Amino acid sequence: MPVGHKGRKSKGSKAERELIHLLWSKGFAAMRAAGSGSTQHPSPDIIAGDGKLFFAFEVKSSKDRVKYLTKDEITQLDLFANSFGARPFVAIKFNNEKWYFLRLTDLKVTKKSYVITLELAKKKGLRFEELTGKYKQKRLF
Amino acid sequence: MPVGHKGRKSKGSKAERELIHLLWSKGFAAMRAAGSGSTQHPSPDIIAGDGKLFFAFEVKSSKDRVKYLTKDEITQLDLFANSFGARPFVAIKFNNEKWYFLRLTDLKVTKKSYVITLELAKKKGLRFEELTGKYKQKRLF
Repeated sequence: MPVGHKGRKSKGSKAERELIHLLWSKGFAAMRAAGSGSTQHPSPDIIAGDGKLFFAFEVKSSKDRVKYLTKDEITQLDLFANSFGARPFVAIKFNNEKWYFLRLTDLKVTKKSYVITLELAKKKGLRFEELTGKYKQKRLF
Repeated sequence: MPVGHKGRKSKGSKAERELIHLLWSKGFAAMRAAGSGSTQHPSPDIIAGDGKLFFAFEVKSSKDRVKYLTKDEITQLDLFANSFGARPFVAIKFNNEKWYFLRLTDLKVTKKSYVITLELAKKKGLRFEELTGKYKQKRLF
């Protein structure tokens, strides 16, 4: 069943709020961006920092086992993160799964878009502890 | 004439958009925060970075020669900035004046609030070039 834009937006916001809470609970200050319509400049969904690490997140959630992202979304995220000095990740929450954080280079590219399957997320994605913690830091970059 | 909350809010947003454009034009990636009602966590109005400097701004504009800020606004800004790893400033735009950026320690404190007069802004505030540029860097912190 196709989902209207409004439905997707509010779903996105719910995931964003959830990630914001998670970040604060782990010692990161995190901020949600104003609606993307408010400016023509690129903007991630969330930016977070703890004085050492800075992250720019595009936030996605999915009830299915696959999620598509537009090339523009990823381009904008990358552009913002590079200018700001943050590390760009797609933060994705599949239903009944924990958060996975994917580097842009780990996304699957198709002709028209980027794709994240649950399998790809599990294989390539970082768990929250890996993203922000000290162990397996070598995997990060 | 008293200004309603809605009027102030949209005026605030206009100043925020103006500062966002200024920041991008000077090589900073800048992001506006979602409405403060969207989360119970502290949030500045704007966050900006260029890979070296990170700023958290509370943004104000005024048609008068004086602007009041609540103690809570400043506390929240300071809290966010310290957690994030950004330098907190009040960015203020008086009518027909350029932007001034005030350190929190330079704000005038009264019993109930913080106050910025145009005179204080001119005396203590940093100009944009001082805030972000290389000259007079010593004045910064």
